[in-house]
Amino acid sequence: MIRVAIAGLGLVGGSLARALRERSVEVHGVDPDASALDAARAAGLLASASPSLADCQALGRCDALVLAAPASTVLALLAQAPRGLLVTDVAGAKARVAAEAARLGVRFVGAHPMAGSEKSGFAASRAELFRGATVAICAEGAAPEDVERVEAMWRLAGARPVRTTAAEHDAAVALCSHLPYAVAAALVAQLGAGPALARGLAASGFRDTTRVAGDGTVGDAAAMNAALPVALRDLAARLASAADALERDPESQRRAWLEARAQRAAFLAP
Amino acid sequence: MIRVAIAGLGLVGGSLARALRERSVEVHGVDPDASALDAARAAGLLASASPSLADCQALGRCDALVLAAPASTVLALLAQAPRGLLVTDVAGAKARVAAEAARLGVRFVGAHPMAGSEKSGFAASRAELFRGATVAICAEGAAPEDVERVEAMWRLAGARPVRTTAAEHDAAVALCSHLPYAVAAALVAQLGAGPALARGLAASGFRDTTRVAGDGTVGDAAAMNAALPVALRDLAARLASAADALERDPESQRRAWLEARAQRAAFLAP
Repeated sequence: MIRVAIAGLGLVGGSLARALRERSVEVHGVDPDASALDAARAAGLLASASPSLADCQALGRCDALVLAAPASTVLALLAQAPRGLLVTDVAGAKARVAAEAARLGVRFVGAHPMAGSEKSGFAASRAELFRGATVAICAEGAAPEDVERVEAMWRLAGARPVRTTAAEHDAAVALCSHLPYAVAAALVAQLGAGPALARGLAASGFRDTTRVAGDGTVGDAAAMNAALPVALRDLAARLASAADALERDPESQRRAWLEARAQRAAFLAP
Repeated sequence: MIRVAIAGLGLVGGSLARALRERSVEVHGVDPDASALDAARAAGLLASASPSLADCQALGRCDALVLAAPASTVLALLAQAPRGLLVTDVAGAKARVAAEAARLGVRFVGAHPMAGSEKSGFAASRAELFRGATVAICAEGAAPEDVERVEAMWRLAGARPVRTTAAEHDAAVALCSHLPYAVAAALVAQLGAGPALARGLAASGFRDTTRVAGDGTVGDAAAMNAALPVALRDLAARLASAADALERDPESQRRAWLEARAQRAAFLAP
């Protein structure tokens, strides 16, 4: 991995550019936003800067093109990617993106780094963003050497690749990311529909539980994740069961809630 | 407010003791846990220390007794409170506690400070915990001078009293605290029932959304909040609607999610 083009120099693309530069990879930046390009150039990250893929002269010499953009933008950029060049992405929904790449005949390996921030844009980027983070690599249908090349890139950036399929990825991310996202928005809407006192009493618990609400990038992927409606209906059934249990035997529900702490700690253990 | 007894020297009771001592209020501590009593005494907070309400000689001279304990413990302590003494509490469910106080003939004003921490116990207590926090004061059925005395105590501790009723409090807290708590536990359980990859990909979004999961004090109150089952069924219906919308018109659901960000920011504005 010697030379990479990164389309999109926001939080994820900018952080990837920083991490790869630290490992002496040559980075070519593509972004329609001149201020992001200027900032990345001023930071000494770019061997070249182009407003669009069509303008990027170095593309043909790159080992890979990374589409570092939300899922819907990745769908649009795939059509502009040169055929024959290895293309990868960072979007949070993989089946739809993989299907579009296959339809267009793009040489493609989907990826999704599980790292983010409340902040966005190049200004929030940092070389350490991916250090220790898991990155899902959707390997099906791709040449083994292409999968290995994308994995090698993420290892250079400090991430830990986990090989999976687009469908498995989407089902997993529905549970661990898109479902919390959809629930956070529903909690906000329900608080908005309630009495003013409920908003007046909202404190740190509500703040944390709804932090991800309204994030545009997550929503972009969540809206095209076919596994999310299933997960939402499953959660709805769980909540209805909890309501019944509270009325029938509140003490058993109280004890069931307590188990969530240790279970969560085990999931989030490093 | 010259002299107060605080039963329970954990995070909330310890922090209240610290804040009131800074305003020269005399504090008498009651806690069955000798180590909490010792720590509070070593911090110079206590004029006297007793393992139980029955052992607290100063109780008759106090302006108020604060039951700084989870809701189920408050229910138990009410029976031990001297008749005639003004009693208040900090529990997160108020209707059940108020009904028990009325049944026992306790002179009672319920309160619920909207401040907390992931940490618990006296070691986590700090005088600033309530600074700027809202404290709900359930005034119905109490003498106006008793309500004013409890409000004055919380103002001394830096909090902002908001007068309400036990039923209004419980409906509001169901939405802003107990519902996020129940949802967090359900998200953890659902992730636990899913594929291992879903746990492997869980990152900061899942971590934040489920931070409150399994908290014993919140669960204690949530299990006796009669407004919670209603709120849970409302949320279940919202999630089922979102699932339908995603299958029918994902773009409209994506846009609806985006609105949650500004709405949440408005709720949480200082």
